[in-house]
Amino acid sequence: MVRHFLEVDDLTPAELATVLDMASHPATDLVLARRGVALLFEKPSARTRHSMEIATIELGGHPLYVRPEEVGLDTRESVEDVARVLMGYHAVIAARVFEHNKLERMAAVSSVPVVNLLSDDAHPIQVLADLLTIRQQVGRLDGVTVAYIGDANNMARSLAIGLSMCGARLRVAYPEGYGFSEAALARLAAADADVEATTDPAEAATGADVLYTDAWYSMGQEAEMVTRRRDFAGFQVDNALMSAAAPDAIFMHCLPAHRGDEASDEVLDGPRSVIFPQAHNRLHSARGLLEFLVRAAGNAS
Amino acid sequence: MVRHFLEVDDLTPAELATVLDMASHPATDLVLARRGVALLFEKPSARTRHSMEIATIELGGHPLYVRPEEVGLDTRESVEDVARVLMGYHAVIAARVFEHNKLERMAAVSSVPVVNLLSDDAHPIQVLADLLTIRQQVGRLDGVTVAYIGDANNMARSLAIGLSMCGARLRVAYPEGYGFSEAALARLAAADADVEATTDPAEAATGADVLYTDAWYSMGQEAEMVTRRRDFAGFQVDNALMSAAAPDAIFMHCLPAHRGDEASDEVLDGPRSVIFPQAHNRLHSARGLLEFLVRAAGNAS
Amino acid sequence: MVRHFLEVDDLTPAELATVLDMASHPATDLVLARRGVALLFEKPSARTRHSMEIATIELGGHPLYVRPEEVGLDTRESVEDVARVLMGYHAVIAARVFEHNKLERMAAVSSVPVVNLLSDDAHPIQVLADLLTIRQQVGRLDGVTVAYIGDANNMARSLAIGLSMCGARLRVAYPEGYGFSEAALARLAAADADVEATTDPAEAATGADVLYTDAWYSMGQEAEMVTRRRDFAGFQVDNALMSAAAPDAIFMHCLPAHRGDEASDEVLDGPRSVIFPQAHNRLHSARGLLEFLVRAAGNAS
Repeated sequence: MVRHFLEVDDLTPAELATVLDMASHPATDLVLARRGVALLFEKPSARTRHSMEIATIELGGHPLYVRPEEVGLDTRESVEDVARVLMGYHAVIAARVFEHNKLERMAAVSSVPVVNLLSDDAHPIQVLADLLTIRQQVGRLDGVTVAYIGDANNMARSLAIGLSMCGARLRVAYPEGYGFSEAALARLAAADADVEATTDPAEAATGADVLYTDAWYSMGQEAEMVTRRRDFAGFQVDNALMSAAAPDAIFMHCLPAHRGDEASDEVLDGPRSVIFPQAHNRLHSARGLLEFLVRAAGNAS
Repeated sequence: MVRHFLEVDDLTPAELATVLDMASHPATDLVLARRGVALLFEKPSARTRHSMEIATIELGGHPLYVRPEEVGLDTRESVEDVARVLMGYHAVIAARVFEHNKLERMAAVSSVPVVNLLSDDAHPIQVLADLLTIRQQVGRLDGVTVAYIGDANNMARSLAIGLSMCGARLRVAYPEGYGFSEAALARLAAADADVEATTDPAEAATGADVLYTDAWYSMGQEAEMVTRRRDFAGFQVDNALMSAAAPDAIFMHCLPAHRGDEASDEVLDGPRSVIFPQAHNRLHSARGLLEFLVRAAGNAS
Repeated sequence: MVRHFLEVDDLTPAELATVLDMASHPATDLVLARRGVALLFEKPSARTRHSMEIATIELGGHPLYVRPEEVGLDTRESVEDVARVLMGYHAVIAARVFEHNKLERMAAVSSVPVVNLLSDDAHPIQVLADLLTIRQQVGRLDGVTVAYIGDANNMARSLAIGLSMCGARLRVAYPEGYGFSEAALARLAAADADVEATTDPAEAATGADVLYTDAWYSMGQEAEMVTRRRDFAGFQVDNALMSAAAPDAIFMHCLPAHRGDEASDEVLDGPRSVIFPQAHNRLHSARGLLEFLVRAAGNAS
């Protein structure tokens, strides 16, 4: 059966380790030679687009980027019909969508792997890069403590699941009202993800190996900027918060950063920041994932 | 002299058979290795774009997609100047245009093949996929009867010409006022295309090997939706109409479908529907055509 | 140290000659094999996009075109952060920007070559094609006189610098008020560029080996069309002006042309016009430049 990747735990822990290993060295085989990878973006994203395109190229394939105005899922054509057509042209269908359910509907009918490039529920492809980065920078994943300071969003959910699968754990610190949704909590429980929650950033940061944050408001949420800046006051990752973490703790951010909001310039550009290696790992981890999925599809067929 | 493809009969019947043969097996030679194919779209199209891009890739080339907002034929630069510039960069110039004449003007000055990806007059690249599909699904083209139920548009014109070149014939059933234009009739006569016309869908369908339909209103014509739904009442391809056709008749549609308008879900998703193999053949037939044109251009130069 | 290309004299005269030599024959080595080249366009451009994409392809690489609406330099993310991220995915970052300073800011932080695809200050990549064209069509560069008739803009500045580096000279004829800015004059002086200025087109054209012109108003300046048509009256390159030049003088234009404004149809389409070979040389010179920069980056690292 074809394998999809809608959330980190669509891989087994052993398969996740394999993907991270594949990501750690250059492509050995052009498994996508002269084959297509459809990249559908309901919302643009620089890192995701560039890393997916070059990951495809490194495997010999051709990325076909479809911009928001032309995606038309359920408007020009039903999600299912789009998937049934594209699976005849492409080795992989990857999509950034607003509604996670569109990915599930594609996966239900597609004979080729469907990859989640970001949905309202999950951001598993970012987490592959994060796990790779922690393994490289901290030297291990097992037993690592990551403190995520900010909105308990789709990013935090996938990070919790991914870390849990590697023997690491997540602490989340968020302001009142920005915790995980009921649905996210149920999904985390189903994944046996080990998460500690608090509304005190310092408590979460204390002794952590990694401090991680995300934007308080994403593109398109600028209207909420004023409200969220007020609500997240005190949640900025600055040198003071970094000093609460382990002495050699690293700082991570999935970018783009709103400098001066969720993190200070001194932290973003400081000696413990690994934000650019982390961004570059988007390429390597995407290549590892594509290689895994295409090989699995080849073995299945 | 360089060969262009603006209508199906720009190929001889023997060449058309060669293209269908080339489409029936994987690319044997990377005739486009590290060469460009310009894909200019005055209007977006999912199937046409994806199939042309991957056809180019399978031949070793690079597709360069230009979206509607950036095409600018006769606005940014004259059609002729665009062609004279692009022919220095690309092995093939392919375009989806509103006015067929723009393709003729490009072909008049271009030293590389010009390919029609859809114009107000003709849709020959779709017909290559259709002929390939009929050959695969019915087992032959010679003597086959196709009943086209709907608007006698550019799609119907090219289908009539293509079928006629292969010893097959087209019956068209359309509501009063939706028949072929005078210009289309003249073009069909010039091509010696064998077409029977009627305003009775059941008459057209009776004993046919293939029922074929197209959207009643295309993208951008949604304003006409109400009028056309009224005018085309009774022209839906449903199980009742399918039962008038030959016992093993197949159902075809060039997609995207407006489900419940020109065809019912039961037909679109039914056992005699070949709409997805037909869509996938867009890739194979485009690859066959590109291989033919590029080889012909190489021999000519 | 990594080499950038923001103005022609970022190369030494010897390196410039090497780039033109590389541009004169097909790629010998796929120096960009399965590597990316980011192409960021704050404003669309047909020739620049197509030539850069195919130059990248001819070297084995993958061009990633980012359209104006998605570039977002300093809006979605700071210019520096964009460069620091993209340099992890791409072998080269090339950009068409409104403000030249954005290129300088990228070059200041990037570990991969940054290429100017057009800025308000300079258009050096066009000049590589121009020099190649003159060398091919006139047979030499040393001692050649080019008369540039029109606006003393970014195009004229880079042309003056490039010609000067090759032992050629530029005469510029412009209407009062359309001469070089103070900043441009300072830059030309710093480059030791040999430029004669006049407000008399016939004086500039007399005996010149090349007449060169550019649009009086560029895309987005259409509002200025009326004013500029009045101000540039008498500056059209027509047969009369051509007859003042050397007997075998050639006519050049960086395109797109506003036919009947800066040049007459009889000149644009006449026997001395080399505008299409010049446009096609955009591909060859871009390939030469990319090959040079990528090799230099490889040697440096």
